[in-house]
Amino acid sequence: MLLDQIQQPNDIKNIDPSDYNALAEEIRQFLIRKISVTGGHLGSNLGTIELTMALHLCLNLPEDKIIWDVGHQSYTHKLLTGRREGFDTLRKYGGMSGFPKRCESSCDSFDTGHSSTSVSAGLGLVKSRDLLGGNETIVSVIGDGALTGGMAYEALNNASKLTTNFVIILNDNNMSISENVGGMSRYLNSIRTANPYLDLKEDVYNSLLNTRNGDAIIKYIRRVKNNVKSFVVPGMFFEEMGITYLGPVDGHNIPNLVQTIQEAQRVKGACIVHVRTKKGNGYEPAEKHPARFHGTDPFQIETGLPSKPRTKANYTDIFSTVMVKLGSRNPKVVAITAAMADGTGLKRFRIAYPDRFFDVGIAEQHAVTFAAGLAAGGLRPIVAVYSSFLQRAYDQILHDVCIQNLPVVFAIDRAGLVGSDGETHQGIFDLSYLSSIPNMHIMAPKNKWELSDMLKFAVNFNGPIAIRYPRGEAYDGLEMFRAKMEFGKAEILYEEEDILLLAVGSMVRTAEEVRRHLKEMGYACSLVNARFVKPIDKDVIAELHEDHKLIVTLEENVANGGYGEKVRQALDEMNSGSKLLTVAIPDEYVEHGNVEILKQELGMDVDSIVKRVVTTYVSL
Amino acid sequence: MLLDQIQQPNDIKNIDPSDYNALAEEIRQFLIRKISVTGGHLGSNLGTIELTMALHLCLNLPEDKIIWDVGHQSYTHKLLTGRREGFDTLRKYGGMSGFPKRCESSCDSFDTGHSSTSVSAGLGLVKSRDLLGGNETIVSVIGDGALTGGMAYEALNNASKLTTNFVIILNDNNMSISENVGGMSRYLNSIRTANPYLDLKEDVYNSLLNTRNGDAIIKYIRRVKNNVKSFVVPGMFFEEMGITYLGPVDGHNIPNLVQTIQEAQRVKGACIVHVRTKKGNGYEPAEKHPARFHGTDPFQIETGLPSKPRTKANYTDIFSTVMVKLGSRNPKVVAITAAMADGTGLKRFRIAYPDRFFDVGIAEQHAVTFAAGLAAGGLRPIVAVYSSFLQRAYDQILHDVCIQNLPVVFAIDRAGLVGSDGETHQGIFDLSYLSSIPNMHIMAPKNKWELSDMLKFAVNFNGPIAIRYPRGEAYDGLEMFRAKMEFGKAEILYEEEDILLLAVGSMVRTAEEVRRHLKEMGYACSLVNARFVKPIDKDVIAELHEDHKLIVTLEENVANGGYGEKVRQALDEMNSGSKLLTVAIPDEYVEHGNVEILKQELGMDVDSIVKRVVTTYVSL
Repeated sequence: MLLDQIQQPNDIKNIDPSDYNALAEEIRQFLIRKISVTGGHLGSNLGTIELTMALHLCLNLPEDKIIWDVGHQSYTHKLLTGRREGFDTLRKYGGMSGFPKRCESSCDSFDTGHSSTSVSAGLGLVKSRDLLGGNETIVSVIGDGALTGGMAYEALNNASKLTTNFVIILNDNNMSISENVGGMSRYLNSIRTANPYLDLKEDVYNSLLNTRNGDAIIKYIRRVKNNVKSFVVPGMFFEEMGITYLGPVDGHNIPNLVQTIQEAQRVKGACIVHVRTKKGNGYEPAEKHPARFHGTDPFQIETGLPSKPRTKANYTDIFSTVMVKLGSRNPKVVAITAAMADGTGLKRFRIAYPDRFFDVGIAEQHAVTFAAGLAAGGLRPIVAVYSSFLQRAYDQILHDVCIQNLPVVFAIDRAGLVGSDGETHQGIFDLSYLSSIPNMHIMAPKNKWELSDMLKFAVNFNGPIAIRYPRGEAYDGLEMFRAKMEFGKAEILYEEEDILLLAVGSMVRTAEEVRRHLKEMGYACSLVNARFVKPIDKDVIAELHEDHKLIVTLEENVANGGYGEKVRQALDEMNSGSKLLTVAIPDEYVEHGNVEILKQELGMDVDSIVKRVVTTYVSL
Repeated sequence: MLLDQIQQPNDIKNIDPSDYNALAEEIRQFLIRKISVTGGHLGSNLGTIELTMALHLCLNLPEDKIIWDVGHQSYTHKLLTGRREGFDTLRKYGGMSGFPKRCESSCDSFDTGHSSTSVSAGLGLVKSRDLLGGNETIVSVIGDGALTGGMAYEALNNASKLTTNFVIILNDNNMSISENVGGMSRYLNSIRTANPYLDLKEDVYNSLLNTRNGDAIIKYIRRVKNNVKSFVVPGMFFEEMGITYLGPVDGHNIPNLVQTIQEAQRVKGACIVHVRTKKGNGYEPAEKHPARFHGTDPFQIETGLPSKPRTKANYTDIFSTVMVKLGSRNPKVVAITAAMADGTGLKRFRIAYPDRFFDVGIAEQHAVTFAAGLAAGGLRPIVAVYSSFLQRAYDQILHDVCIQNLPVVFAIDRAGLVGSDGETHQGIFDLSYLSSIPNMHIMAPKNKWELSDMLKFAVNFNGPIAIRYPRGEAYDGLEMFRAKMEFGKAEILYEEEDILLLAVGSMVRTAEEVRRHLKEMGYACSLVNARFVKPIDKDVIAELHEDHKLIVTLEENVANGGYGEKVRQALDEMNSGSKLLTVAIPDEYVEHGNVEILKQELGMDVDSIVKRVVTTYVSL
């Protein structure tokens, strides 16, 4: 095995060039085999094997620095920097992260996770290199999908002023996570498909053909063109901005890649190397189904089918079904996603109502203000987005939606702990950052039926409103509780005394189990499904607090600014004598790992909560 | 007066075309006269008089819709839509807003304030028009400065797919608020200065000259060029994206503007009209000092000098001075601003250390992640930004700075109530949105010396840290209190008993006055300067709460997620029997007006607070 020769950074340089392709193939099979067991990001990693090898051949790690935009395509980089063993624990609690992490290796120069940050970060490393007198190479690797994110453009706009070297690899697979969208995509496509005989704009060509000497002029221009880069050639826009453009180059041809990267390293300024790659390259199921193999659960290598087929619907499925219904009932309902049509479940809505579906690319800021515009124009937009990605549109929610009190619905998927993606993807801040915004309203469903009821409530609500629900299987218990949705009203599930559990969304299920344990232990215990986190239901608290010595709030959100703090304030206003215990995520980032394990670590699993409740209760 | 004929929307259409220039001049003098009294945004409004007139001549308001990016250039629009009287109360409490407001006029189709939102919002209005079967014209007016903001690019990327009309006016004055930066600026400049003899890239030109027949080819290409738009002509990038480009057109020539706008209205798709305007046009002091007349206090028309010269330093001045000192002491200190070198006081740092100063344009997202990169590379970046604009970088703070625990200092100017700019500019959310982020630390100075001490503390702090300070005059009282800065430690100013005032930043001054009143009324009263909002000083609370029946927190921030909530939680943890009263901004947007009046309205002035404290205290 050639891979056995790769034990530490730069070992790849000892491989004979004639073996590069064989090594690439070994890496490909290694990744397929490992990810088929652990799950993880497959397509993007299969697409960047040769590119990563070429980078490692050109650079000296860890002195030189690579910033991987988004970062889920860094598996080959991890392999080439001596982390082969890590793939057995990939994305598991305590195991290797699926993203670059400075704390994991000195070869990981900047943590990533969200899209479009790499050029900004890389430019920062370039400027610090220059000011501190270093001469290392800085490379940012950004996908064409990430290039639809505005901050990448902000960064390019600034990188254009550089007079020292900065290599930007544009990893162009003509997709973000699913299909790419928009003008930049169109522009890149025009470059991608360029060839010497199509370079001249057709209309120019035709004009020239119809003139005397036209033929000679065409021939001449074609000849000149090879020497004069910025003349009707690929990358003209980047060149006009002041960024050198090299490419396009075949992203699976290692010698070509090496040659071009070395050329880029000699440029005194920012240099884009336009690399064409194929997502899922070399593994047929991944090539055919790029969206499914973007991030995959464990799968059977031969068929590409999931190892454990899902038996139950997840929240995304429920959202998907209800959206199609809402669309049929109300022609004003429109749906917006930021490159997550599959992930958010809007695929079916898109098929049913293509005119009312908008995938804006990886552009959460635009998604939200665009929705504000749609609402101002009289429509009922629903923005479907993951909790952690919506962070990027905080200002747009505050400034464009909520000041004008516009009826935009935020369907916030992956809210709470998401598990194996780790720190960057945990959806544990939304209750806090949304709560601080005036005019915003927030709901969270306890089970799949409630998600449906809340969506129906939300599209008829006259103002900004968010529904946050977790990643994964939709809870189908507690089906006997389905009180009518009323604005700002919680739902009392069990009313007893002594201990009151006030639970938000996913934690209602947990609270129900906690209550069962408490009952078995002889404690009386009430359970309320909060439903609304903003506004909280002060009436139900006023009604119940006197009969309960201990009130426990439960939420999958950081404690700071969360639901528990609101309840604390309400109890204080009522001069309540009840003790409050808040179960929430402490003030720290939560790493990757199985959600159940994470909950145990955070003291948010049933057993830990029962213990804390009992301890607190007996001390009263 | 021609202006007398303008009483309501569309009245301008009754003006004889030969009088357009005279009307423009009347408007110009009107704006100068009015703004010289009230203060407001002058330069941008003087630059857009003719453009606004042309738009109003081409459109039917309020059916057709104009979205003014940022919005402070909408004065002529307000004038032409019957709001002439409003200029006497411009930006005053209860008076006319300095920004477009849907609640103010049906001719204001979308509220703006922050930069780069207009294309997203306009695209939303376009899509709702199309789906609802309307045929109104939608126009977004965006400056070249706002085009450095990533979300404008996200929106253009999406607008490029349109097959129905959408007019985008690019109001290009070659500046954002001060000088413009970056590649797009360079690109626009290449267009702006284009003329038939300079169109051909010089290198191409030279190559051609040196060949047989070269001269003939050059002549030929120049002739062809006029008929073939996308050949080395202005706007090629936009055209390549799929957006029709018209221009550049003289932004002070009304007939040309009208003709071009009407042409743009006929385009089936998105159409950029590139308009060249001059900021401050027609008023010499504003033409000469664009930054000073961007937003101005009342001034003397003849000289352009402030009516009331400032006598005291404001916080920005203090920051400015200290930054120069810090820069001289530590070569690793670097400063970043997002198009606010003047506003944030970094102008002097820029002059002293040009290599260590970065103005990234209106690009807060990039600013923050770029700073993270600088910090990861070993420097000590200080990001100077206004509180309300930093909202746009919430995700970058959370995701790029704080996960990696990087030593980035946020110098947050205009924190708290800012006054006459209103809802969009109030810096009243930062304590909340920053508090929810793990690893973030937050300070607020009570007076000018403390700002200096905190900055020195911050540049030596090993992690993310923010200092928030208010707009305007720096408080120079309480100079006898200058305890050494210690991490997480509050400063006790007066220690008595019964009532404890815990005040944050600007509210320390208020609290001191409150205390004086309370003392006069016979109450004992302690006063603590919080200094740190995150982490709060639990020790000082533990030490003092038992001797104080009433604890009062004071902060210029929304109550939700603010300082008061943290103190409430701490008291609860300590099972304190003390009553907590939180003085903070309620859960609503705060409109424009004098800060003192706003504080009264919010119950945050000295008298209101004294009343609330006494009422609460006597009820205990």
